[in-house]
This record gives sequence, structure tokens and C-alpha cells, in this order.
Amino acid sequence: MGDRGRTEEQVLAAIEERRRRPARVLLEEHITLAHGAGGKSTHALVEALFLPALRNPLLEQLADSALLDVPDGGPRLAFTTDSFVVRPLFFPGGDIGRLAVHGTINDLAVTGARPAWLSAAFVIEEGFPLEDLRRIADSMGAAAREAGVPVATGDTKVVERGHGDGVYVVTAGVGVVDDGTNLGPEWIRPGDRVLVSGTIGDHGMAVMVARGELDLEVALESDTAALHELAASLLDAAPGVRCMRDPTRGGLATVLNELALTAGVSIAIEESALPVRPEVIGACEILGLDPLYVASEGRLAAVVAPEYCEGALAALRAHPLGSGAALVGEVHPEPPGLVLLETAFGGSRVVDMLAGDPLPRIC
Amino acid sequence: MGDRGRTEEQVLAAIEERRRRPARVLLEEHITLAHGAGGKSTHALVEALFLPALRNPLLEQLADSALLDVPDGGPRLAFTTDSFVVRPLFFPGGDIGRLAVHGTINDLAVTGARPAWLSAAFVIEEGFPLEDLRRIADSMGAAAREAGVPVATGDTKVVERGHGDGVYVVTAGVGVVDDGTNLGPEWIRPGDRVLVSGTIGDHGMAVMVARGELDLEVALESDTAALHELAASLLDAAPGVRCMRDPTRGGLATVLNELALTAGVSIAIEESALPVRPEVIGACEILGLDPLYVASEGRLAAVVAPEYCEGALAALRAHPLGSGAALVGEVHPEPPGLVLLETAFGGSRVVDMLAGDPLPRIC
Repeated sequence: MGDRGRTEEQVLAAIEERRRRPARVLLEEHITLAHGAGGKSTHALVEALFLPALRNPLLEQLADSALLDVPDGGPRLAFTTDSFVVRPLFFPGGDIGRLAVHGTINDLAVTGARPAWLSAAFVIEEGFPLEDLRRIADSMGAAAREAGVPVATGDTKVVERGHGDGVYVVTAGVGVVDDGTNLGPEWIRPGDRVLVSGTIGDHGMAVMVARGELDLEVALESDTAALHELAASLLDAAPGVRCMRDPTRGGLATVLNELALTAGVSIAIEESALPVRPEVIGACEILGLDPLYVASEGRLAAVVAPEYCEGALAALRAHPLGSGAALVGEVHPEPPGLVLLETAFGGSRVVDMLAGDPLPRIC
Repeated sequence: MGDRGRTEEQVLAAIEERRRRPARVLLEEHITLAHGAGGKSTHALVEALFLPALRNPLLEQLADSALLDVPDGGPRLAFTTDSFVVRPLFFPGGDIGRLAVHGTINDLAVTGARPAWLSAAFVIEEGFPLEDLRRIADSMGAAAREAGVPVATGDTKVVERGHGDGVYVVTAGVGVVDDGTNLGPEWIRPGDRVLVSGTIGDHGMAVMVARGELDLEVALESDTAALHELAASLLDAAPGVRCMRDPTRGGLATVLNELALTAGVSIAIEESALPVRPEVIGACEILGLDPLYVASEGRLAAVVAPEYCEGALAALRAHPLGSGAALVGEVHPEPPGLVLLETAFGGSRVVDMLAGDPLPRIC
């Protein structure tokens, strides 16, 4: 990967430096909802508690999927897990089962892997209607068949009434990584472009509206979708893709902050270029939220070398799941670790990582 | 594997026949604790609901781990998942973190795989003490390091107070299967011997006593342990191992019933040969339970060709985790699908699969 400007040693040194960064501090004594929101508190929990406890080089990649070298040869593997506690279980455009299949496929796809197998574990609350469980399982099966990624193994546990919330679904996934695929924030360079594959925040707002607490009458559907084909056609068209992410919990703002921090660069995004549905903007305004922090479940963000930007955009737009793709930003050398939003009025403000949890249990 | 008496075609036909068996019927309309107990109701739920919804050849193996052929070559993989909802979270001999690491390693090991990587997902209840979470994560890390199997990837979600029970842990695991390793109930033949690696029921009774509801003053420790080294040394010593299982939920009785059903054989076990601690017998008597249905989390059951029985026992006993290994039964052709217990008084009774859930949330 020398053509990307850094040697293997430099990349390893950058990862090592990141590893030596002082661990974030946990200020609380008890778990709060914010620890599950995917933003600052989740990062603090992972870096101050889970990483020191489970410390090993694979986990420290802190990527959407871990990349595994199989001891006896064969291709590299990607391995990921995700738990789903979304409320309500059924929402316009999807349900917890479909979301679980898509979410795990996407965590594999954005690391450049071809998703191959899923596992599914169910923690079910006593008294949950079998008919609802059947709907969820059917929906998972349909999503897995559509994506061509089978659920190879599973598990079921039941907890007493009042110790769950219907059903929680936990999926893991294994994918196969082609030789030569090597994505990651460490490859990001000043001048690179930032693309998103479609409108942001649809999933989060669709779930919030479906809860019925907002008294909103907007027709919003989750964007939940399996992105592995879109990701594969992007990689085929643009060898200059540096890295991809799916902006779920914490939204695009959090994902870009993670990239800027890890790569030691600044990312400038242009407010007027961000694709956001008017309904999402409207619902966000009522809730006092910024769409940049609202989860998508069927969008990918990609950082691409400038010379491949047009080809990448064209490849995204040629796929039904990327028809709304847009160029939204650019990478700069300074100030490192920061995401800046250039507003429609010509101003500029720092976009931090998500703090607190304005949208609990969105996935 | 022709030397085992059945051709590939006969084995496939047996699996196909099993697949065509009428699906069990779900008699309830709502989930009960029994659906999570690992016995008859769990089987009904899997066969009547999950299998039809997710149907694919991998899942239909219904083994402790699915066996995967990697498309681009390399060794076969084993893939498994397990959720842990044990109550209390800490108990003599272990805790939910240690149990999760061991349980997933063991599901890989009993299919003959070398466990290589784990994932860990946490569903945490708001308000859970960070100090307890740290203890659990530290314990997982220690168990993973002792076993030499890293936690490569993870996820954290938080649910509101009253929608969880401290923390649920869901692990998945990937292992590497050596060429030539081919275990499964389809290889069981009349005349084969049944071995267990140590006393049964320790884990289940230790957890029940730890709940403090029994008013028992017995010193019982969970047997939770990682069995991959024990399983590997058994396979090395005895190429005639037909299959292995870890008798967790539903106990040895349920595991042997599954084997007898799948293999279409009868399994006779001898009551006087079963290794059970007097404290476990005592606690079981108070609860009206049979130790045959109580979970172990650090024992394996193996079916072995008769000529390898002595070597297999010696190999088990040579390992610290198998020092209490015993020959407990034999396989007969008739009546197919049944497990029979030969009692100390010379009688014989049918041992069915676990019904109901006498020990909820034992793992």
C-alpha cells in the first residue's frame, strides 16, 4: 500500500500512538443510557473499562469488524457483533429482525469484507407473543435470503417478565476479505473527499415517530438496508477508497469525528451539501436535534482519494441504494482531530462527537 | 469415513430423514420460561418457529457450532453463539463473564474445532454499577487469556431500568476445524460407549444455592471451565470418538436424548456409574430434581467406539479437567431414540428430555 504515501511501519506507529493515548475517564459510578448511545460516553466506557479488561491487538483495532488472519492459510476473515434493543420492535420500513441482519452485514461490508455467515441470539421476555416472535424470525429470514447471507447458528434464552422488553436480538457475522483489500482511517490523507450514499437520519427519526410520543404525522420510513453490494461496487469502481463507515448510533457526526481523531486530520463538511429529507429536518427541529447525530441504518460514508471522487460518486449513484449519494466534505491537515461544519451562511462551527443520549434505543 | 460403517450417502440420507420429521408443534401462544430451558419446549420453538423462518442447510445441522466451508479455500470453520442471562451474576466458581467465555469455547471444542476468536455483546441495564461491570469484563479477559482465545470484537447497548437484569452477555465464537475431523451423532453405532469427563450438575446446583432461596449451607462450586484442551487430547488419543457434547441446559439427560434421536439408537446409562457429588444429590433431593437434568458448564460427554474406550478414559483422566471421567453407558440398536437408565436396584426406566423449566436462568 506504499502508493498511499505511508509505509507499513508508519501505519503501525500511528496505531501504536493511538493505543498509547490516555484512556478516557469514566466520571460516573453507574451505567447511564448515554453509555449505550454510541457517542462520547460509549467511547469512554470502551476505552476505560472494556479495552483494559479484554486487551488484545484485535480488539484494539476498534473497527466495525475485527480482521482475522486464519492460522492455517486461506483468506483473511472479518468478525463483528451487534446487539439490537430497538423500541418499538416494528416500525415503518423494518423491524428488529431486519435491522439486526442489515446491521451486522453492514459492519462487515464497510471493512471491505464479503459477508458470509450470521449468528442470531434471542433474549426473550416471558409472555412475549409467539406471533410477534414469528414475524421477527420470518423477517430476519427474508432479509438474510435477500442478502444471500445465511443465519448459520443461533441461541434462545428466556428471562422473567419485567427483565426484558419483548425481545433483544444479538447478531454476529463473519465475512471473507479479499487479498489487497485494506481499508481504514489510517489511509486518510488531506485532500480526500467525503461521500455519503444517501439522506441521513431517516432511520432514527422513523423510529422516534413510530414511538408515538411526538404527536407527529409525518410519513417517514427507516432506511435499513444491506449495504454489501453497494460497498462492493464502490470498491470495484474506486480503488482509491480509503475507508468506509455506516453512520448508525451517533450519526454521521460521530463517525466523522472517529475518523478525524484516528487519522489525525480535520474534516470539513458543507451543510448545504448534506442530503437530509425535509421531514427529518422538521422532526429534528421539534425534538431539538441535529440530523448529523441521527442514525441511518442503510447509508454508508466513504472517504475517497480526490482523483477517484467522481468515479466513486457515479458508482454509488448507479446502485438503487446509492441513488441519493452526495459529496459532502473534504479532508484538511489542520486542526487535527476536528470536524468542522461550513454553514449555509458562510460560517463554520465545530461538530463534536455525540454527547448524552437524545435518542435512546434507536437500534 | 467409510470405516465407520456408513457411506456418505447413508449419512446424508439420515440427516435428510431427520429434516423431514414433522416439526414439533408450539402449544402456547406466548413465550414461557420453559422455552429457554434447553429441553422439549426449546426444541419445539426452534423446530416450529426458527428453523422454518431462517431455513438453510447450515442452521439445520442444529449442532453446537455450524461448520462452514470458506469459499476461497483454507480450513473449515466452526461458528457458534450463546446468550448468558444467569442469575446471580456472581456465584462460587465463576460469574457471567467467565461462563460466557467458557460456554462459547466449549461449543466450538465439542464439534472438534480449535477455538480461535470470540465476540462479546453486552446488554446493560441503566443504573448497573460500573464496578460490577468492570469485575465481569476483567473476569472475561482473564478467562479468555487463560484459554488463549481473544475477544476480537464487541458491542455495548444500554436499556432503561426495569428492562434488563444488570447485564446480559452474548458471545459468539469462531474456530478452526482440522482436516479429517468429522464428529457428529450420525457416526454413533451400537456397541459404542458413553463417557463423561467428571461429576454432573455442579454448575446448576452451585447457581441455585448462590441465589440464597434454598436456605442450604452446602459448599458447591460451579464447574465452569474451558474444555478445548481436554477435547483436543481426547481426540488425539482416541480417533474412534464419534461425537462430543457439553451437557449444559437440560443436563446430560437432554444431551443423550438428542444424540439417541439423531442417531436413531438407544442409549443405556447406568445409575451407579454416574459421577455425582453427594452435595449435588442432596440439593437435588430438596428441590425434587434429578441431577441428570442439571447443567454442567465444564464437563464433556463423548460417544466412543468400544475399542477406543479405555484409551479415551485414560486420556480424559490424564487431564486435570477430566480426572473424574467415567464410563457411564452404552449404545444399543433398540428402541431407537430412547435413553434408558439402569437403576441401582436392577430396574430400568426411560429418561426423557427435560420438560418445563425447573432451573430458570442457570446460564
